[in-house]
Amino acid sequence: MKNVLVGQSGGPTAVINASLYGVVTEALSHKEDIGHVYGMLHGIEGFLQDRYMDMGAVLSPDELELLKLTPAAYLGSCRYKLPEDLTSPVYKTIFEKFAALDIGYFFYIGGNDSMDTVSKLSRYAAGTDSTIRFIGIPKTIDNDLIQTDHTPGYGSAAKYVASTVREIVLDATVYKQKAVTIIELMGRHAGWLTAASVLARKNPHDNPMLIYLPEAPFEMEQFAHDLQSALEKRNCVIVCVSEGIADRSGTFICEYGDEAAVDNFGHKMLTGCGKVLENFVRNRFGVKVRSVELNVSQRCSGMVASKTDIEEASSAGAAGIKAALSGENGRMIAFVRTSAPGEPYHMECRTVDVNEVCNQEKPVPLEWITKGGSDISDDFAEYALPLIQGEARRIMKDGLPVYLFRDAD
Amino acid sequence: MKNVLVGQSGGPTAVINASLYGVVTEALSHKEDIGHVYGMLHGIEGFLQDRYMDMGAVLSPDELELLKLTPAAYLGSCRYKLPEDLTSPVYKTIFEKFAALDIGYFFYIGGNDSMDTVSKLSRYAAGTDSTIRFIGIPKTIDNDLIQTDHTPGYGSAAKYVASTVREIVLDATVYKQKAVTIIELMGRHAGWLTAASVLARKNPHDNPMLIYLPEAPFEMEQFAHDLQSALEKRNCVIVCVSEGIADRSGTFICEYGDEAAVDNFGHKMLTGCGKVLENFVRNRFGVKVRSVELNVSQRCSGMVASKTDIEEASSAGAAGIKAALSGENGRMIAFVRTSAPGEPYHMECRTVDVNEVCNQEKPVPLEWITKGGSDISDDFAEYALPLIQGEARRIMKDGLPVYLFRDAD
Repeated sequence: MKNVLVGQSGGPTAVINASLYGVVTEALSHKEDIGHVYGMLHGIEGFLQDRYMDMGAVLSPDELELLKLTPAAYLGSCRYKLPEDLTSPVYKTIFEKFAALDIGYFFYIGGNDSMDTVSKLSRYAAGTDSTIRFIGIPKTIDNDLIQTDHTPGYGSAAKYVASTVREIVLDATVYKQKAVTIIELMGRHAGWLTAASVLARKNPHDNPMLIYLPEAPFEMEQFAHDLQSALEKRNCVIVCVSEGIADRSGTFICEYGDEAAVDNFGHKMLTGCGKVLENFVRNRFGVKVRSVELNVSQRCSGMVASKTDIEEASSAGAAGIKAALSGENGRMIAFVRTSAPGEPYHMECRTVDVNEVCNQEKPVPLEWITKGGSDISDDFAEYALPLIQGEARRIMKDGLPVYLFRDAD
Repeated sequence: MKNVLVGQSGGPTAVINASLYGVVTEALSHKEDIGHVYGMLHGIEGFLQDRYMDMGAVLSPDELELLKLTPAAYLGSCRYKLPEDLTSPVYKTIFEKFAALDIGYFFYIGGNDSMDTVSKLSRYAAGTDSTIRFIGIPKTIDNDLIQTDHTPGYGSAAKYVASTVREIVLDATVYKQKAVTIIELMGRHAGWLTAASVLARKNPHDNPMLIYLPEAPFEMEQFAHDLQSALEKRNCVIVCVSEGIADRSGTFICEYGDEAAVDNFGHKMLTGCGKVLENFVRNRFGVKVRSVELNVSQRCSGMVASKTDIEEASSAGAAGIKAALSGENGRMIAFVRTSAPGEPYHMECRTVDVNEVCNQEKPVPLEWITKGGSDISDDFAEYALPLIQGEARRIMKDGLPVYLFRDAD
């Protein structure tokens, strides 16, 4: 009987803890095969400093249920990249620590970089007599992992974006005057989250009227042309942009705001593309304009999480345990959409080779980006809508959401 | 039998439509006294252009229920200030339009400026043979109206701030490294919303560790000292600041970022105090730092609205109709807290002289601002907690909130 070691890595999402819940509860249900379920604190980096907790011993069933609904990474996260050179002594150290804890099953919940960690550990193990099974559980709001229909975390973030954009449309259109609102959304390289803003529309000609993703080049003059047309149709135009939009030369639009921007203390101001576009529109069009950056709530709003996403994230964690127990190793849990378009949505977990997933990115298909790069097709909506369905249970006390906090470091 | 005219003015809130719902449903229930219930589109400014709708005729009962849960201003808003000079011909024009629609009761839902409109119209009417009764229904997320315990709109905004700050605390503390997160909250002159961030804490020594309101002067060196102390206690420090914090000279902190900040197009960048503090902290402390501006969702989040606030806002609208029917004129609906501290919360509506309310501001009491201006007292929490209680009903379709949209202008 071996023990489980599980960790979280990379940026938080609303459901990375739901995957942790899935790993822990499924592991605890296999009393014949699994002993302790250890959680690394701050991922592999913390584990190297012997920081871990016995999750089954520490957390009560009620706390586990709360964990499932708590955004961000309960165990703490890290951005630690293992050396490319598998002969580095750090691997020997890690495997000694695995042996000391009698680890038989290793789970890492994260995005690209975390899958890279799973890949390296499993490849290192292959050159030793280790029998530990290494499994990756995907998570990223960016939805940019390949070989999976979508990633846990994306559905909740997309639901937050679509709901919030719909509310901002209501807010931005109360006055009669010509006005432009620019909403900057997360996504450096992939526009999946920004694309979700199209779901905020009530009808095809509605706000947000313009949507720009990093997958298509963003040219200021084309934007001015698109905006001019939109302002001829409506007084209030809402524009949604990915933080990572860039022009044909590959220069991020946000970089155009950086160089000359220095505050009174002489410090360089870091400004996003929303502010750059706000200034551009103000000067070119002379209309009222505001930019809004949705910021970290996109990835940590438990109040507007998707029930589908939470359940799928949990099932991905549980599938990880089952895969490991059945002998799989060096694999990542992936989602397969088994329903055809038009049919009721159905998803199943499978496993894929983690080595093929890591360090790759899945962009939004170019054929889903329409109207010269300023709109999103209905095919995207058909893809994304099932992922935002259902409301997460909210446990409230004194009018505020109750979450599971670990004592601060 | 006379008709009702109702309008919305000033910035949106999550519950200004709940007050409209209260006015409309209460008015429609007095069939013996009230004929039509007209809604001005874009407030008094739109009414001057004969823009109004017959709300009882247009909205179904289901749509009225949806109105109650819809954030922002359904009728549209304006920022139109009536002339100080009551002999201005615009007053005669307005009252001719009132007469043409056989208006007997006038309701204006808004903040300071809207109460100024109610004051002026009622004072003008006093010099004529008009029998129209003018009633103000308060609303502002800023909570800065005098002669009322609090304002409709504040409870939902405070709940949004406290919930979201709690989630951002979870998000910001996943990594081990020293880090500072600065959250910029709405409030130019009054710190009520920023004070609500204290409710996000689980215990008194918890994040957000530092909270700064515009009521107390903000000095950079004192802030550096406060932050140094906080960073000695915890790796991750979350700081909440009002957008309107200013130093002893009266200069807004955000102004320190303005002058030298010019983007590559040669345009001046408008930057908030959060960005200014972010740059200050990065350069002074050399730690990881990020600033987050919660932005318009503070005033338009229907998903995280307070049920107490929605019900109170609705009751304020209904109380307006009752006051007008009982003969009151030139009054604003106000809230009185009839429960003593420690007792179960209870609130009643009364009316106050609108002339005494308009153009005044209620700051956070200085005795509620503690620790040299960097914290908020328990007295504030006792005051604010009842206002954020209860969850608004959410009507969802396809995973997104359903709101009542008026066809765009």
